Amino acid sequence: MARWQPGARDRLVMAAVDLFADQGYDNTTVAQIADRAGVTKSTFFRYFPDKRELLVAGQETLCRLLVEGITEAPPDATPLEAVAAGLEQASNAMGPMNRELGPRLKAAIAASTELQERDTLKSVGLANAMTEALEARGVPTPVAHLAAELGVLAFKQGYAQWITLDHDEAGLAPHVLKALKALHTATTSL
Amino acid sequence: MARWQPGARDRLVMAAVDLFADQGYDNTTVAQIADRAGVTKSTFFRYFPDKRELLVAGQETLCRLLVEGITEAPPDATPLEAVAAGLEQASNAMGPMNRELGPRLKAAIAASTELQERDTLKSVGLANAMTEALEARGVPTPVAHLAAELGVLAFKQGYAQWITLDHDEAGLAPHVLKALKALHTATTSL
Repeated sequence: MARWQPGARDRLVMAAVDLFADQGYDNTTVAQIADRAGVTKSTFFRYFPDKRELLVAGQETLCRLLVEGITEAPPDATPLEAVAAGLEQASNAMGPMNRELGPRLKAAIAASTELQERDTLKSVGLANAMTEALEARGVPTPVAHLAAELGVLAFKQGYAQWITLDHDEAGLAPHVLKALKALHTATTSL
Repeated sequence: MARWQPGARDRLVMAAVDLFADQGYDNTTVAQIADRAGVTKSTFFRYFPDKRELLVAGQETLCRLLVEGITEAPPDATPLEAVAAGLEQASNAMGPMNRELGPRLKAAIAASTELQERDTLKSVGLANAMTEALEARGVPTPVAHLAAELGVLAFKQGYAQWITLDHDEAGLAPHVLKALKALHTATTSL
């Protein structure tokens, strides 16, 4: 079976994350990213308007999938079952590129206050999107908030576990859903 | 009974928040803030190193009080009882200045993406501090996370209610503790 080969867009993301980790976000230029990815600067700009956008590009897709999953869950699903449906939809869109990128992205974030702030704001953005999708299902606001927070924590914890695996057969979803179940259980020990 | 009279430091904070609300955070200078507060620029710098610091100044105190309350709660307190102790300690430090400032701060934040991001990062910082304080009590990580998130939500909801009151006798704490109780109840509907 052929090994997964990233296209230009994925190569740009990986090159950028490696450079951010090595020399910091602020010190990295678009020219350096394009160079490392083996493409021209104008190819970079075909995919991303700027360096920052490269980082948030995945967030909109993630948000959309989480919201879709929640919205399309059966009407009688509990709030957390709806969140689980959103998480499953989003997790299934994460492939080998995301898994290979994980440890490097983690290193880049650890090395940069700016990236830590971006990452935090991203999490809050995902939680807000899920809260609104749950409210649109008629879930009362405090319950929607809680269910969304649990969803974000589960996604983070499942992802953190997934990217440490040497081999991956089942994908991200089982890790995230297991984390969600554990968090639900934890609510009984508050 | 004498009406509450703010000192120079509080006047600087109120002047800054008013100017941020009127003309935006980026467009406001230290000179304008000092001028509106009726003090010199060098007085401003006696209290704050810069414009941004003025906004985060309160956060360290808040963090410290939340953590103190959690740490000093009785050993047999549940995670949420410890959080309630932290919230009570922090709430009791909020006086008329904080209440009068509330609606203006809200307007300033609504008008500025930069302040929204600052505010979001502040909430996450408080949640992290509470999570660590709970873990130090031996609370398992997922439960600590959840309890801290509930604490931050309760603080925000209680504060939002408190600043809408025309008269205030009892202070912030009862509003925050009531919100925490409602959130705890909400966990049974997940």
